[in-house]
Amino acid sequence: MPVVLDVDTGIDDALALLLALRSPELRLVGVTCVAGNVTLDQVVRNTLGVLEAAGAPELPVAAGATKPLARRLTTATFFHGADGIGGVPLPATRRVTVEHDAAQLLCSAADEHSGVLNVVAVGPLTNLALACRRDPTLPRKVARLFVMGGAATVPGNVTPASEANFYNDPEAADEVFRAGFDLTMIGLDVTLKALFDARRHGAVRDAIATRADAVARLAVQVLDFYLHADLAAGLEGSPLHDPLAVAACAAPRLVSCKPMRVEIETAGRLTAGQSVANTLGYIEKLESRGDHDDVVGLVQPDPNCRVALDVDTPGFLDLFSQRLGLDVGAPPQVSWGPG
Amino acid sequence: MPVVLDVDTGIDDALALLLALRSPELRLVGVTCVAGNVTLDQVVRNTLGVLEAAGAPELPVAAGATKPLARRLTTATFFHGADGIGGVPLPATRRVTVEHDAAQLLCSAADEHSGVLNVVAVGPLTNLALACRRDPTLPRKVARLFVMGGAATVPGNVTPASEANFYNDPEAADEVFRAGFDLTMIGLDVTLKALFDARRHGAVRDAIATRADAVARLAVQVLDFYLHADLAAGLEGSPLHDPLAVAACAAPRLVSCKPMRVEIETAGRLTAGQSVANTLGYIEKLESRGDHDDVVGLVQPDPNCRVALDVDTPGFLDLFSQRLGLDVGAPPQVSWGPG
Repeated sequence: MPVVLDVDTGIDDALALLLALRSPELRLVGVTCVAGNVTLDQVVRNTLGVLEAAGAPELPVAAGATKPLARRLTTATFFHGADGIGGVPLPATRRVTVEHDAAQLLCSAADEHSGVLNVVAVGPLTNLALACRRDPTLPRKVARLFVMGGAATVPGNVTPASEANFYNDPEAADEVFRAGFDLTMIGLDVTLKALFDARRHGAVRDAIATRADAVARLAVQVLDFYLHADLAAGLEGSPLHDPLAVAACAAPRLVSCKPMRVEIETAGRLTAGQSVANTLGYIEKLESRGDHDDVVGLVQPDPNCRVALDVDTPGFLDLFSQRLGLDVGAPPQVSWGPG
Repeated sequence: MPVVLDVDTGIDDALALLLALRSPELRLVGVTCVAGNVTLDQVVRNTLGVLEAAGAPELPVAAGATKPLARRLTTATFFHGADGIGGVPLPATRRVTVEHDAAQLLCSAADEHSGVLNVVAVGPLTNLALACRRDPTLPRKVARLFVMGGAATVPGNVTPASEANFYNDPEAADEVFRAGFDLTMIGLDVTLKALFDARRHGAVRDAIATRADAVARLAVQVLDFYLHADLAAGLEGSPLHDPLAVAACAAPRLVSCKPMRVEIETAGRLTAGQSVANTLGYIEKLESRGDHDDVVGLVQPDPNCRVALDVDTPGFLDLFSQRLGLDVGAPPQVSWGPG
């Protein structure tokens, strides 16, 4: 199926890009870049470099938003490195971006592949919101939109309330969630269950050193950097946030979803960018009583998206590892005894 | 120990009041009333009526805030009945409120019992915030403050983000959480594990009908109303929110707490009143990079309260039932077979 991938490359974006290129179900018809993990110029540089390293066919790459719709950008070099790619050298490339911007690439791709285009958005949703403003019928032309972002049943990661992509551009996320897409939210609920854990990482690093596959070597190198930051944040490995969104598009059965009402906080002092998911199954119905309101009953919320709540972790890690050349068989058993 | 109970009576407030009166560890030195579940005049009427029904000794009852610090009041007659007490008749009483207001009662009690006073607040925190404004040294005079409100690790109940007491007065909750109290938060994390379930309720109702204890009969009657609304909200019984806060004061071992940083959202469109608890164990450290900010590291949050995260449910239900005369032995076993 034709797919546009929207990235803020970024370590896990790089891995998502590699996975998309190696997924036979997906035909990448464009890549759009957005400021997020690093600034836009760095995102573009990394995206073109990763495509080069992977020996990807020529495909249109568009530069998009340099900053969120209404806020200051927050990059995350602690997690992604000063260059956004963990200091891993990328090959020189003659690849360049197309002349039109990311929103235009999204709109044109949706016109060309109307009704069958899938979009996988793994950065702040700025480009997608701008594309919807340009063509309000975009949501009807896109078959499915997979968004890496938000947290329905677990805390955020930038703050206790908010996940990084929605935190970076709450207004864009709000617009996209209201736009009428067939939207699947791949949030921290599942991506924190999709850890490339430290033991697996060690085994892979040793096995890969002698392999010729440039994609595998690049993947291991960026994961090296990522792992240290993730362990500092109290995790037991590296969450494969963005690759999981690509995998959910390529192999939807890997995730279990539930239709849900999700709204994005834009006004909060502590909670801007929070994905407020109605897990209660009700909305309180209020009536005015003059100087106060009164809860008089409960009504059902209307779902506006599917939220991924569970993931087949071994199935996903197998798919990810096999496609990126990181499969080394089962991780070695640790022997606890003296024998 | 001397205790002031701050209530918005309210069905579970009535039960909390009865439990406080029947708890030998606690010496109720005052009750303060605040608008919340119902309007203040109704709260006062119900509070005086419950004290009368329980044959409580004379004790000062003060009327407090008629509305939140900065917002419109939201009552909840769906859960508490139009009269706030589930339509259960309360005895006529000659009890009246004291002349000074709730904030003054709190300040005076803290002066009189400085260093040993416990406060259990089970309504919106308006009275307590006003008391802190009147005497900023109040937090140092109160030995421990138990607050029923918020939700650290689970969704809210009024909205997916916010619990009812904090939802009603986010600004007051914010002020109280910043004031420097030795504060224990008894939120939905534990009160939703303290359900007076439907089967227990049925057994108790039958057993109590013939008993002389007015407190037990009143408790069963208000629980009758409460249960129907709670089942409509998808629960399997009635959460004993407010009684659990009283029990945590009387028998602290019933709850397991964790020191945590909790801040209250006051600006949110969807999240006002949300208790944002730092369960991550880190705060991202930002540095300015000219036109954007950058996450450069992680620092540890400073705890400002204890959050109850688990409860000994059987232990609490036993204490609650025994003290209110609702103990009927173990709930009857249901026979599923034909025999």
